[in-house]
Amino acid sequence: MTRKIIIDTDPGQDDAVAILLALASPEEIEVLGLTAVAGNVPLALTQKNARIVCELAGRRDMRVFAGCDRPLVQPLVTAEHVHGKTGLDGIVLPEPTMPLQDAHAVDFIVDTLRSHPSETVTLCPLGPLTNIATAFRTAPDIIGRVQEIVLMGGAYFEVGNITPAAEFNIYVDPEAADIVFRSGVPLTVMPLDVTHKVLTTRPRIEAIRGLGSAVAHAVAEWTDFFERFDMEKYGHDGAPLHDPCVPAWLIRPDLFTGRRINVEIETTSPLTRGMTVADWWGITDRPRNALFMGDVDAGGFYELLTGRLARL
Amino acid sequence: MTRKIIIDTDPGQDDAVAILLALASPEEIEVLGLTAVAGNVPLALTQKNARIVCELAGRRDMRVFAGCDRPLVQPLVTAEHVHGKTGLDGIVLPEPTMPLQDAHAVDFIVDTLRSHPSETVTLCPLGPLTNIATAFRTAPDIIGRVQEIVLMGGAYFEVGNITPAAEFNIYVDPEAADIVFRSGVPLTVMPLDVTHKVLTTRPRIEAIRGLGSAVAHAVAEWTDFFERFDMEKYGHDGAPLHDPCVPAWLIRPDLFTGRRINVEIETTSPLTRGMTVADWWGITDRPRNALFMGDVDAGGFYELLTGRLARL
Amino acid sequence: MTRKIIIDTDPGQDDAVAILLALASPEEIEVLGLTAVAGNVPLALTQKNARIVCELAGRRDMRVFAGCDRPLVQPLVTAEHVHGKTGLDGIVLPEPTMPLQDAHAVDFIVDTLRSHPSETVTLCPLGPLTNIATAFRTAPDIIGRVQEIVLMGGAYFEVGNITPAAEFNIYVDPEAADIVFRSGVPLTVMPLDVTHKVLTTRPRIEAIRGLGSAVAHAVAEWTDFFERFDMEKYGHDGAPLHDPCVPAWLIRPDLFTGRRINVEIETTSPLTRGMTVADWWGITDRPRNALFMGDVDAGGFYELLTGRLARL
Amino acid sequence: MTRKIIIDTDPGQDDAVAILLALASPEEIEVLGLTAVAGNVPLALTQKNARIVCELAGRRDMRVFAGCDRPLVQPLVTAEHVHGKTGLDGIVLPEPTMPLQDAHAVDFIVDTLRSHPSETVTLCPLGPLTNIATAFRTAPDIIGRVQEIVLMGGAYFEVGNITPAAEFNIYVDPEAADIVFRSGVPLTVMPLDVTHKVLTTRPRIEAIRGLGSAVAHAVAEWTDFFERFDMEKYGHDGAPLHDPCVPAWLIRPDLFTGRRINVEIETTSPLTRGMTVADWWGITDRPRNALFMGDVDAGGFYELLTGRLARL
Repeated sequence: MTRKIIIDTDPGQDDAVAILLALASPEEIEVLGLTAVAGNVPLALTQKNARIVCELAGRRDMRVFAGCDRPLVQPLVTAEHVHGKTGLDGIVLPEPTMPLQDAHAVDFIVDTLRSHPSETVTLCPLGPLTNIATAFRTAPDIIGRVQEIVLMGGAYFEVGNITPAAEFNIYVDPEAADIVFRSGVPLTVMPLDVTHKVLTTRPRIEAIRGLGSAVAHAVAEWTDFFERFDMEKYGHDGAPLHDPCVPAWLIRPDLFTGRRINVEIETTSPLTRGMTVADWWGITDRPRNALFMGDVDAGGFYELLTGRLARL
Repeated sequence: MTRKIIIDTDPGQDDAVAILLALASPEEIEVLGLTAVAGNVPLALTQKNARIVCELAGRRDMRVFAGCDRPLVQPLVTAEHVHGKTGLDGIVLPEPTMPLQDAHAVDFIVDTLRSHPSETVTLCPLGPLTNIATAFRTAPDIIGRVQEIVLMGGAYFEVGNITPAAEFNIYVDPEAADIVFRSGVPLTVMPLDVTHKVLTTRPRIEAIRGLGSAVAHAVAEWTDFFERFDMEKYGHDGAPLHDPCVPAWLIRPDLFTGRRINVEIETTSPLTRGMTVADWWGITDRPRNALFMGDVDAGGFYELLTGRLARL
Repeated sequence: MTRKIIIDTDPGQDDAVAILLALASPEEIEVLGLTAVAGNVPLALTQKNARIVCELAGRRDMRVFAGCDRPLVQPLVTAEHVHGKTGLDGIVLPEPTMPLQDAHAVDFIVDTLRSHPSETVTLCPLGPLTNIATAFRTAPDIIGRVQEIVLMGGAYFEVGNITPAAEFNIYVDPEAADIVFRSGVPLTVMPLDVTHKVLTTRPRIEAIRGLGSAVAHAVAEWTDFFERFDMEKYGHDGAPLHDPCVPAWLIRPDLFTGRRINVEIETTSPLTRGMTVADWWGITDRPRNALFMGDVDAGGFYELLTGRLARL
Repeated sequence: MTRKIIIDTDPGQDDAVAILLALASPEEIEVLGLTAVAGNVPLALTQKNARIVCELAGRRDMRVFAGCDRPLVQPLVTAEHVHGKTGLDGIVLPEPTMPLQDAHAVDFIVDTLRSHPSETVTLCPLGPLTNIATAFRTAPDIIGRVQEIVLMGGAYFEVGNITPAAEFNIYVDPEAADIVFRSGVPLTVMPLDVTHKVLTTRPRIEAIRGLGSAVAHAVAEWTDFFERFDMEKYGHDGAPLHDPCVPAWLIRPDLFTGRRINVEIETTSPLTRGMTVADWWGITDRPRNALFMGDVDAGGFYELLTGRLARL
């Protein structure tokens, strides 16, 4: 069955691959629109990058909306040290000519959830949760109408990447994450614990590059660019491909395993701010609010990704 | 010169008196609209109460918008122990028949600031700062267009009322207050330090009641109701009349004195959450972001209030 | 009846006056010893200053012990901007020749409480509470043996002096203060709310100077020195004479009024750290752990102080 | 070369094994004394258990001191759910007849460090760091005299056991841990990342039991008791044998690998309190204050342990 989704995103090379994977999978996924948020790079770039990716996929018809340009409470932190100045460094793609929608991303999210039958629209955040949290706060009636939130963010055993205690997406806007994780909406979380297992090894990337298409070329160039940062840091044979785990789970949930547990967001301490405190071992009595993934069939994941990218 | 304002409010008896004072003062104040927020009582009541007050003032033409029904991050705390179950306990007034506007309060604030010349619209928050902060976050272009924010909230030497360290309006939504106090918009703050000096003594309230109008009767009944709580607590001869200080300052700034100082909002500690840490003595190097009032000519204030209520 | 006390102190000019007042009042106070702690100036100076003051009072027999040289958890903050480089700036007094005791101040406190009948020794801390808290932690059996703790520290309506939210003694070691305020020992607190009411006005200081003794001369010179800081800051006609309120209360409790309330110490937030959150209005259900003073007969206080200093 | 150590401990079965391993290794380790602290069970039990273990090892000559009975700031938390009511559940051993020393553990630590040449005494804390921190605060001159601190505590990739974010020893007294980790003393840390790799598998424990001695029998019975808790929780084939990693490293440092990194202690947030925030990936500029172990040759560890226990 096709699932209707809104992709909330801050591209970012791995966001771009996630968008491509979703757009290449119409049997399982119907993308209602893309909402951009500030994160990996500022909003002016993420909304443009979202359109660049749509055009690359031949989907000039897709609607892209700009959302919040900074986190709920704290100043914006970006990650150009990973993604490059544009957020899509690695290959130069044409400036997009498809329009940015006039409406605010938050209004699009609210209107879409109100205009569709309840529990038929899934939100797929790939960046900081600012847009989603703002929509929940300005229009709380939509919270009960969300089918599910499937997001990339957080970490438990992998702990953190932007700080020793926090993953980037949650760290950038912990208050927004706190709102989302307490919202009561069914949550599926792809933390670093999973994404650090789908590494961009040479054979995997060369298999994609070998597809020979413009899309495949871009994906290979992007991963060549950003994997350098993580490979140097972690000494791995490749870098984590974070965000594509979200559409991959929508298409092939059998590739992933996890636990339904409590996950709370640290918002107060400077030292641990943005940590996703996951009760993996069931130590506490806190309510189980998230399906927190812990493992993935990495081979199956890249097989799926390569196969789907071959369609574009 | 007339100042254009939006009153952001959670009536509350003292909010009601503030609205009446503003509506009675067209020489100095043009009210563009009222935006309701959850605070003293839930949103369903504050938006209704705002309309009740407009109708009492004979201003069925005023536009009233409903805004956020809970704070940015934390659950809503209300104050029925002060204001009664309806928020306007003390007198039974007719259900309002004027409509609630369809648009969201946040959209009204954003649209109004965009459609008026820059720095010609003043925001007057009388409750938690959720609507204002949400508007600033979803449409940051409006921040630089606000002429001034004149708000009731916080305390320094009076410290707190809802907790030993925090005043109610700031305590309910400290994250929103933090956004507003760091926004860079010129701020004028009416803290408990001032509002605890404009007490509803018997002679003052009887002077208002003696006006003989329906409005005057309502104001006297309202203060009779809510002053009991504060009189018992503080042992004062009357209760503070908080929110009317905001329009009073717009009309007669000479009645008030204060200092331009740094004010920061405590958001992290459970014990002191919602405190307005005001650098009254200039101890720190923090930037001066607010005109924080410290004193008021209480006699002049009540003379103004009574005189203006006499017009309604 | 004479009360046996240990003065725990970080002189400081006002500590010095407090020590003199205690030593001059044998009918009411028997000083068992002085324990020095780091605070206004480092420990090397406070232990020396304590001996200087004893010698000035002609009490070379008094035992002075050096204690902790830094707060329990955080680095030491000192206040030379108020007290001058020596802590006793204002007059040059001879280097002390009486010995510093070998034992650690904490051991003296522990041993004294164990060797006296239970509830017959009162602790009088005039500085950060590091020594007291360390004694309570290493020898918890003494906690129930303390008759009372009468301390200078904290503030509610006066809020803070070293930061906008904290008084110096508590700010320097909030964790120690937290231990003491939760210890269950009967507490009497002289906060800024009281000490800011006993100002060193000209007539008061000249009355002391007029006593003509070496002690009186030193006291007058000390207050001349340190009052400049506070007078410039507050614009008062004189400076607060903080620490002498402690022995004054032991001698003439009728000069002071206060409330038995809950007082908790803020230890977590950088912005409000060291605040004494005093539930003056009885808003919370927290246990009443302190007699928190709020007012003082300032004239009576200076009459007492001058009369007693005349004896030395 | 023999290293002189003080074992600071809260036995606990795994503490007991660590003590036995140290006492069985006179070539590498000279135990100057044992200092007990409240932790796994209250102080009254830990000081007794320390003596029980000494007697089991035939070392009635060893000196055992009782120290702090509660953490620096917060109330004591114990772990009877792991260690049983006595702390040494699993086998009933005779009440100890060797005396508890009169001196306080903190005084013994201070005196020992002062009476030995500088940097010739190593501290080996196996429990909460209360005794060590108190010694550092009351006698800061000893800090520079410590050769090294080798401790069991904390976690990074294993994150926590008593809460989802904190390991027990650090969680019980985060302020003490903060003092120790900021002290400047060279630190070697055995976190859960290492101790969860030395599991009490059946063959390993049966090899110890097979030694046939009273000591071996006790060790096997202890691990049989406490491993049930961890095996049920983690689903492992055996439980972590935490504390013996400390003496094992003193004897055979080649069995362990780690990184010299910054480690800070979370003290403020209720959610993450007691976390050891370890900058394993070198993300921050914070100073490298600890050798934080990450891996161990588990086979070699058990070979060492069994061989040494065979001597007792």
